[in-house]
Amino acid sequence: MENKRPLILISNDDGYQSKGLSCLVEMIREFGRIIVCAPDSARSGFSCAFSATSPLRIELKSRQNNVEIWACNGTPVDCVKIALDQICKGEKPDMVIGGINHGDNASVNTHYSGTMGVVREGCMKYIPSVAFSLCDHSPDADFSKMAPFVKYITKRVLGEKLPKGICLNVNFPVTKHYKGIKACRMAKGTWGNEVVKCRHPHGYDYYWMTGEYTNDEPSAEDTDSWTISHGYVAVTPTRIDITDYQMIEHLKSWEQP
Amino acid sequence: MENKRPLILISNDDGYQSKGLSCLVEMIREFGRIIVCAPDSARSGFSCAFSATSPLRIELKSRQNNVEIWACNGTPVDCVKIALDQICKGEKPDMVIGGINHGDNASVNTHYSGTMGVVREGCMKYIPSVAFSLCDHSPDADFSKMAPFVKYITKRVLGEKLPKGICLNVNFPVTKHYKGIKACRMAKGTWGNEVVKCRHPHGYDYYWMTGEYTNDEPSAEDTDSWTISHGYVAVTPTRIDITDYQMIEHLKSWEQP
Repeated sequence: MENKRPLILISNDDGYQSKGLSCLVEMIREFGRIIVCAPDSARSGFSCAFSATSPLRIELKSRQNNVEIWACNGTPVDCVKIALDQICKGEKPDMVIGGINHGDNASVNTHYSGTMGVVREGCMKYIPSVAFSLCDHSPDADFSKMAPFVKYITKRVLGEKLPKGICLNVNFPVTKHYKGIKACRMAKGTWGNEVVKCRHPHGYDYYWMTGEYTNDEPSAEDTDSWTISHGYVAVTPTRIDITDYQMIEHLKSWEQP
Repeated sequence: MENKRPLILISNDDGYQSKGLSCLVEMIREFGRIIVCAPDSARSGFSCAFSATSPLRIELKSRQNNVEIWACNGTPVDCVKIALDQICKGEKPDMVIGGINHGDNASVNTHYSGTMGVVREGCMKYIPSVAFSLCDHSPDADFSKMAPFVKYITKRVLGEKLPKGICLNVNFPVTKHYKGIKACRMAKGTWGNEVVKCRHPHGYDYYWMTGEYTNDEPSAEDTDSWTISHGYVAVTPTRIDITDYQMIEHLKSWEQP
């Protein structure tokens, strides 16, 4: 038992059949046993949502060479919860990995991202957890150049662990050659023009969510957005405790109405 | 135009017909014009999820005495986005309020909460944003004792605003008499036993998400969980920038593989 190889739990928000997930499995299978439990279809933008009111199902899709792949009809967070409870059967994974996401999860996208939902869920269970994302939304994006960095970061996290309550959000640009890794912070940014109004053939209005992202501090070199736009791999340490400690001091003046 | 009374946008995750929302509207309508845009049915546990792939609709349910109520078939975050874009018609609200939620949103529930999704969305749009939640899940919970505190906090936020990138998560206990307000931090806590397996009459397994919450630091008096369990109103300042700045320094050692 003590010689068991590390157990790595993988999920994503693009679905169990996505290329990014398959590429991730191939990159890291050398490090241990792998359980994939991922949505049965795409669940982008699901954040930390879980299914409070709808029943869930899971289905084993394949099992070979220390890689098990399960599909679940729930959210990315559901996938992690149900995998930990039902598939890992009491064994706590050594690591949770989200991705590889088709599309970046930098800046405020951290909050919307289902891939980061996976990783925040792992982190809330005190498991070292890392999200990998590539700035390319296409279903057949080329993830191959990421391999040495994905392996390096996975190996370091398996070896060193991560502090409790901190997970990593790793974003890769699309570039011919990665200049290296940079530790960085979330950029401040805003989404605008997010709603497109359309007319249904039956005569009523409906709306699509879309949007344009604006980096509100484009010249800040310590941000994830700057880092990926300059050819580096951006590693952003992300907290579960999202209290603003400085503001607590100010709010003490509110305690006596 | 300059004499216009404040515009307050309200949403929630319990749905536009919930009692908590109606009570909130009654408590704060004295402060200005109110637009409600809330889900057409309950969307608990939706976090910051938005509808990336399904079309949205909105419907005006009532309009009277400076209160407009709209229902939307999307998530709590969708409600805020579509209200800002389509209903507020270019006028930026002076405040976004989420709630009053039926059930607490303290500790790690912050991450899963649709009410906090509303408020984080408002905050990401640089609008002063506050969530109110009562530790009582029942549909007919008694919100009346909250009124002086809800009015006080709303008035302060309308007057002072909030720093950009910080929103407030306000949780109320169920108690005969509130001892006062306390500014506090998110408690560390964990959910366990989250999955219940059931058998469908047709012979397959399915699962419900549920769970038991454990406060991992029950004696820490500066936490939201301690504060509400001791009869105070807990005000937790919450950040959009969830970077762990201390960890960035450590990760710099990873930059040279």
